[in-house]
Amino acid sequence: MEYSSIFHDMNKRYCYALEKGKFLFRIRTKRNDIKRVILHYQDKYIPVQYLDTRKQLEMKRVTSDSYSDYFEAVISIDIICLRYFFELTDYSDCTIYYGNYEFYEHEITSIDHMFDCPQNLREEEMFCIPEWAKNKIVYQIFPSRFASSKQIPEEIWYKKPIGHKENLQGDLKGIVQRLPYLKDLGIDIIYLTPIFASDSTHKYDTIDYYQIDPSFGTKEDLQNLVQTAHAMGMKVILDGVFNHTSPKFFAFEDIRRNQEASAYRDWYFIEEFPLRKGSRMEKPNYKSFSYYGGMPKLNLRNPETADYFIQVACYWLQQYQIDGWRLDVADEISHVFWKKFRKAIKAINPNALIIGEVWHYAGDFLEGDEWDSVMNYPFYSAVQAFAAEESITATKFLEDLGFLRGNLHQSVYPVLWNLIDSHDTARFLYTCGEKKEKLKLAAALQLLMPGMPMIYYGDEYGMTGGPDPDCRRGMVWDATYQDTAIHHWYQSLIQVRKKFPCITEGSIITVQTVDEAGLIILTRQLSDQKITLIFHGKEAEVKLPEYTGQPDLITGNPFNGILKAYETIAINSSSL
Amino acid sequence: MEYSSIFHDMNKRYCYALEKGKFLFRIRTKRNDIKRVILHYQDKYIPVQYLDTRKQLEMKRVTSDSYSDYFEAVISIDIICLRYFFELTDYSDCTIYYGNYEFYEHEITSIDHMFDCPQNLREEEMFCIPEWAKNKIVYQIFPSRFASSKQIPEEIWYKKPIGHKENLQGDLKGIVQRLPYLKDLGIDIIYLTPIFASDSTHKYDTIDYYQIDPSFGTKEDLQNLVQTAHAMGMKVILDGVFNHTSPKFFAFEDIRRNQEASAYRDWYFIEEFPLRKGSRMEKPNYKSFSYYGGMPKLNLRNPETADYFIQVACYWLQQYQIDGWRLDVADEISHVFWKKFRKAIKAINPNALIIGEVWHYAGDFLEGDEWDSVMNYPFYSAVQAFAAEESITATKFLEDLGFLRGNLHQSVYPVLWNLIDSHDTARFLYTCGEKKEKLKLAAALQLLMPGMPMIYYGDEYGMTGGPDPDCRRGMVWDATYQDTAIHHWYQSLIQVRKKFPCITEGSIITVQTVDEAGLIILTRQLSDQKITLIFHGKEAEVKLPEYTGQPDLITGNPFNGILKAYETIAINSSSL
Repeated sequence: MEYSSIFHDMNKRYCYALEKGKFLFRIRTKRNDIKRVILHYQDKYIPVQYLDTRKQLEMKRVTSDSYSDYFEAVISIDIICLRYFFELTDYSDCTIYYGNYEFYEHEITSIDHMFDCPQNLREEEMFCIPEWAKNKIVYQIFPSRFASSKQIPEEIWYKKPIGHKENLQGDLKGIVQRLPYLKDLGIDIIYLTPIFASDSTHKYDTIDYYQIDPSFGTKEDLQNLVQTAHAMGMKVILDGVFNHTSPKFFAFEDIRRNQEASAYRDWYFIEEFPLRKGSRMEKPNYKSFSYYGGMPKLNLRNPETADYFIQVACYWLQQYQIDGWRLDVADEISHVFWKKFRKAIKAINPNALIIGEVWHYAGDFLEGDEWDSVMNYPFYSAVQAFAAEESITATKFLEDLGFLRGNLHQSVYPVLWNLIDSHDTARFLYTCGEKKEKLKLAAALQLLMPGMPMIYYGDEYGMTGGPDPDCRRGMVWDATYQDTAIHHWYQSLIQVRKKFPCITEGSIITVQTVDEAGLIILTRQLSDQKITLIFHGKEAEVKLPEYTGQPDLITGNPFNGILKAYETIAINSSSL
Repeated sequence: MEYSSIFHDMNKRYCYALEKGKFLFRIRTKRNDIKRVILHYQDKYIPVQYLDTRKQLEMKRVTSDSYSDYFEAVISIDIICLRYFFELTDYSDCTIYYGNYEFYEHEITSIDHMFDCPQNLREEEMFCIPEWAKNKIVYQIFPSRFASSKQIPEEIWYKKPIGHKENLQGDLKGIVQRLPYLKDLGIDIIYLTPIFASDSTHKYDTIDYYQIDPSFGTKEDLQNLVQTAHAMGMKVILDGVFNHTSPKFFAFEDIRRNQEASAYRDWYFIEEFPLRKGSRMEKPNYKSFSYYGGMPKLNLRNPETADYFIQVACYWLQQYQIDGWRLDVADEISHVFWKKFRKAIKAINPNALIIGEVWHYAGDFLEGDEWDSVMNYPFYSAVQAFAAEESITATKFLEDLGFLRGNLHQSVYPVLWNLIDSHDTARFLYTCGEKKEKLKLAAALQLLMPGMPMIYYGDEYGMTGGPDPDCRRGMVWDATYQDTAIHHWYQSLIQVRKKFPCITEGSIITVQTVDEAGLIILTRQLSDQKITLIFHGKEAEVKLPEYTGQPDLITGNPFNGILKAYETIAINSSSL
């Protein structure tokens, strides 16, 4: 038994309230080392001789990553404080007891040797994530390139994007016109990249946070967009860029004008005066998100600055009833700021969703008092590696997802924004070498898993494009450019996902991978619904005679026993 | 190499700013598995082709516990964001690279595969612990039994304590009279268990948080105590009992009178009305710290209640210039409350010290935004096991301390309140079977290590006593009851500790344990000062000829080459 890999901590990450009186316990062990874990627990304050409150519960191995297994148990109880310890048995039938960060050969009876958890009276620490968001489908819109209410000549709309200053004339009215299309596709939430005044195409360098960029429309257009979306049962998330501004933002302009004398000199990180922009040879003399200084970094440690941007976020939430914020470069802003931010946002609307942009595991921001979730770039990386590059095995793909499931707060997993590409990456179809079967596999992995799939606009019509700015081409509204087979595939996946809650909410009954064949065979169950999903990540055909004749829930056709290259099927296995 | 034991996390616990521009990185590995760790890092925002910012630094193995080694490195840098990864080499000379929670066989060049740390602009998250507290000596006073300004007959003062209602008539004026004694002993800080109005001896069930208990004196007496202590260069810490109150506290009284109609019904956790006290057969119908309901638990989730007690803490800090709060049953109160508490306290006095009472590892409360430190009960347990019970080896003793050093924030280690007993435990002398040599060893372990030794009143005169209330006997002011040899030992240890900063601040140069002989041999160095401490945890004599003739810094006598049972010596090894 590998003691050095066994880990449990009292609080926040390994032991917390899921709801009033319901507590989750988690323990991590070395992969394939521990056969069985039993959680022993008792009331801290009732002496056993008065009333024997001791109980035990076998923990479930809920997931694994490449190096660790994760066991969990949920108990319901109403007391001040629990004492508990773990009984671990390995595959050689060795048993050890683990309490208070120490190992014991015999069952622990001294409460001083147990872990100690007063969580049950800490309801105020519960991670409250808006219930409406769970497993919902997000559609990411890059407004200048998604839809225009004007007649834009084809040669402009479909030209290859160059640089960051062109305006293809997409606008909010154009988005409103396309809402029925999105509704029909099955989208629940639209997320718009920045829409505030800025002189770039992407608008991540904001000049005025209180104005809609005139090329996109007006505040009334936003109001109309939100109201129309809401009337159709869809939510709207905006993009909050609070890490940096445009150099043309009023505060930075003021510093440029007044230098040391500016009342805003502490709104940024200015190293010396006079201000100097960067060049290839020299960094700017202020902290900037971009190398040349085009996006000066805000000093949110300054309470005045922090309040300004929290007010911005509150303004759009309150005045325009948006449903949440996606937060740009969110991990380069402090926990202190995000804690304040959450309090302010949730005071206005506890149902507003807060999503951070982070490219790596972000557990530290997801403990209940900062964001609700993140753009799931680790999912993106895993899909890229498994389905586009074929550089990892099916097993490794599941292990990479297992790492998230095993380490993040349990309530976060169903709201992770699972993406296969975004405005910041090349399109999936581009990175996979334009193999549409691979895109179909990636879409299936995205749409037939728990979490919030985030579809980047146009993927559903087979759009391609290299790294930024090429990945931000005009949306293919003309049938000539649309791949309707891909679109049909997306629709079918979304329909299956919505028809069978088992796909997103079911417990995993069995999971099997066949790495030589690139197969993932996953069976989930939710009450009497049982579905087997088979994903195939290789070019070769695979025979699966045991499922021959079963109807494939995605296509509606009976499965002929042969899984083609990169094919995905979903079999109703309730009766198998 | 055991991959499953290698752990690093981006933030708070494994990577943080120690001061502006100075960052600590920590990584945990399996014990005795990894020979060398190199930290590789570079600026996230400067492309290597523009300017090669890549650097590397060998990390130092700073400590170990029974299962893990802990490596640390500190770098100084001023940039927005670091990318970094670790190069680990084991004892078979296998090398692996660890970045972004994944292992790689080849050196990592893609920044996507590196860890990512924007800490350097997160100065607002720095853990600011009052500098004055570092390595200072605390003296715990139980006011009703420590000193009285009145003439108390011997037969009362020295009687065996019974129950929790007797008053031995100690008071604040008595403490003031004894301040010269404490100053002379070398005490830096006095910590008083509760002094507010209560009808018990211990006063952990407070009736009025705004009154000094009349038996202890008046507010003027407190003022005089604080001012006198300050004038003598000593600090005063009070005991904050905010987890529960006396049932006679006004809010609980009001509930008892008015039941459901009380305006204070949400100040506690009342399960049903009418209120019912507990009995051996039945729990009370409200949450209580004690089984029978004698200490009803406060509902600090109620903002009104939380504010009341934060105001209490602020009042004494502001009006009476106390130097900090020790917080009772602190881990059964929420993180939400403590974050609010710290903000309020530090706004009044950033130099106020906040110490939580927790009996186990408390890392979750020690991340910079709750407490400054804790009563170090894990130290207590280790000393009990090594020096009193002899149930663990010298090696295990150091491993137990290593767990704290390896897991807690680096800045916390020098302010941990290292205790060998307290008002809540039997006296050390009692648990070790009245062997004074063992008490001397325990005192040496307490006073010759980094941290804040907390001396429980009277230990320095060899006081004994079984579990509460026997451990709370009247302080031995009469020479008849004083063990002056023990007192001399304490004084010598304190003098050596103060004379040689190397003992508390020096780096560990070598550490050696000989478990059969119960020996710990520890050499620390601070600039040109080098001291070897030898602790001996067994009854037998041990020959240590290599130190023969060297002066022992504690006694001032030359060491005769034989370490007696449980003896400790300190050798100036600068020239050895």
